[in-house]
Amino acid sequence: MEQGSGGAATEDLIEEVFKNAFDNEYLNKMEDSSVVPGAGRLALTTDSFVVRPVFYDGGDIGRLSVCGTVNDLLMSGAVPKYLTAGFVLEEGLDTEDLKRIVRSMKETAAEAGVIIAAGDTKVVECPGGSEGGLYINTAGVGFIDEGIAVGAEKIMSGDKVILSGNIGDHHAAIMKSRLNIKNDLIKSDNAPLNKMVRSLFENGIRVHAMRDVTRGGLGTVLNEFADASRRDIHISEKKIPVSDGVKSFCGLLGLDIMYMGNEGKMVFTVDPGDADRALSIVKSSEYGENAAIIGEVGEAAEKSRLILKTPVGGERVVSRLYGEGLPRIC
Amino acid sequence: MEQGSGGAATEDLIEEVFKNAFDNEYLNKMEDSSVVPGAGRLALTTDSFVVRPVFYDGGDIGRLSVCGTVNDLLMSGAVPKYLTAGFVLEEGLDTEDLKRIVRSMKETAAEAGVIIAAGDTKVVECPGGSEGGLYINTAGVGFIDEGIAVGAEKIMSGDKVILSGNIGDHHAAIMKSRLNIKNDLIKSDNAPLNKMVRSLFENGIRVHAMRDVTRGGLGTVLNEFADASRRDIHISEKKIPVSDGVKSFCGLLGLDIMYMGNEGKMVFTVDPGDADRALSIVKSSEYGENAAIIGEVGEAAEKSRLILKTPVGGERVVSRLYGEGLPRIC
Repeated sequence: MEQGSGGAATEDLIEEVFKNAFDNEYLNKMEDSSVVPGAGRLALTTDSFVVRPVFYDGGDIGRLSVCGTVNDLLMSGAVPKYLTAGFVLEEGLDTEDLKRIVRSMKETAAEAGVIIAAGDTKVVECPGGSEGGLYINTAGVGFIDEGIAVGAEKIMSGDKVILSGNIGDHHAAIMKSRLNIKNDLIKSDNAPLNKMVRSLFENGIRVHAMRDVTRGGLGTVLNEFADASRRDIHISEKKIPVSDGVKSFCGLLGLDIMYMGNEGKMVFTVDPGDADRALSIVKSSEYGENAAIIGEVGEAAEKSRLILKTPVGGERVVSRLYGEGLPRIC
Repeated sequence: MEQGSGGAATEDLIEEVFKNAFDNEYLNKMEDSSVVPGAGRLALTTDSFVVRPVFYDGGDIGRLSVCGTVNDLLMSGAVPKYLTAGFVLEEGLDTEDLKRIVRSMKETAAEAGVIIAAGDTKVVECPGGSEGGLYINTAGVGFIDEGIAVGAEKIMSGDKVILSGNIGDHHAAIMKSRLNIKNDLIKSDNAPLNKMVRSLFENGIRVHAMRDVTRGGLGTVLNEFADASRRDIHISEKKIPVSDGVKSFCGLLGLDIMYMGNEGKMVFTVDPGDADRALSIVKSSEYGENAAIIGEVGEAAEKSRLILKTPVGGERVVSRLYGEGLPRIC
């Protein structure tokens, strides 16, 4: 607890764990705020990460906390620049674990080209038995280049819907850990999508709306697209990329792939004239090799729906996830 | 728990509690990031709030979460503009309590002239007995006007040290709640200091360094000033403003006022030629009526110290707080 007091013990913790890892000119000043250069339109976002376990196959809460916020900035058309990191540490957290998590944040930030410019640490007791875990909040600031404008309200009838790769990996990875299931085929997809998004814009692809497919899954995100655009969205189950490992995992446990959370996948709609080119750009980008065109935007509809064509040729309306998906996947 | 799933139940919670309260054009778009206008130099900061109890005399965790981040931005010389708010809700939290906290954030944001531009909500189980509490992270973005440059490295020998008012109020208010002590004289000082800081700059006061006196207290902040400037700092105990209520509370419990945390007080150093004018500006500002010049910056010193002149004429070196102050005061 004393490492949370705000005094010298807190400073020692910060020096030992955070400052060495995140070492940059902004953070090193150790002022209450960091001053960074900026201009034009800003994108702002925040996300808290509460995933348990904090280490899992394919990643950890540190990598996740950088990817999640970087991807949120990217989805608004911004170039991610600065992150802030707020740590809430439960008493009993192993310092070696914390260092490993912080190292992972540092590496992921480098991969994503962002600077962790401000930080904060609190220590809490956990009444009734400490887990020794932690929560990480990251907020992000990005800059939006002139001429770029994406948003769900820009979706048009006829747009093609492109998914950037296999879905369900992160959700299944967390779930297998929590259920103590051994399965080497499944690991999290947590990844920053900077290069993929940048390539789309640099090649002039007319992207109308983009979302990363996180909590709530593809079913929820595409319902948000349908609602915001007041249009039906039609997708084909056969075209949705899912790995064999995740497919059988979902089958075994009776999980609906439409609601499986992801941390390195995005879905976007694009002018139909650009769809094939967009697909090949994504497929040749890191983390995009399994991308697919999974459907298209239908006509305007008073009460818009997400309509899934099943493999046997039927149709079902997919609603948003309501109620409890797996908790603490991010 | 289902309100944390990311699906429709989460959306209902957000609509019901957050969107109504924080209603603004940026947040209302409900995209993953918010796009806001910006230019020039940016200040960034983040702070997580874990105070227990969440309601206390003079404020609540919501007011605190806005003041804390606003004040951190102000201390870098920035005009605070946008906040992000990340909520981690423990299962069992009363929705009416949450609404009250969010309303308090809204009111404090209005007072401080900032827009809550992005948000996130997670729900966690609390193993071994839920408290039904919450954590709030706020990150902040501000803009720094041209020509403004403050920082601990700008402190000069001869600078006067000004404290903006009574210290210890917030710490004592939380402590009395936690210890179930009734004392109507004590209540938290949590407040945003925008007007006070703005007045100093608008009047051309040569402020060299500013810090809000939060966790770790005056002793820790002035040690940070001493270290960063490599100069001794001399202050006089008699001149430090403390209310009678807090003075007797500290006496009773054996607490050192030098380490009591605050949430609406700042300490700053100023060119000696501007000190009297600075004091009168602060005293005529909201939340500044008890301000005082408490000391001055001494000569350069290899191993800089904070030296407190005691009321009986002696001197003691005050080190940083080490170890456990009261946990969860912010």
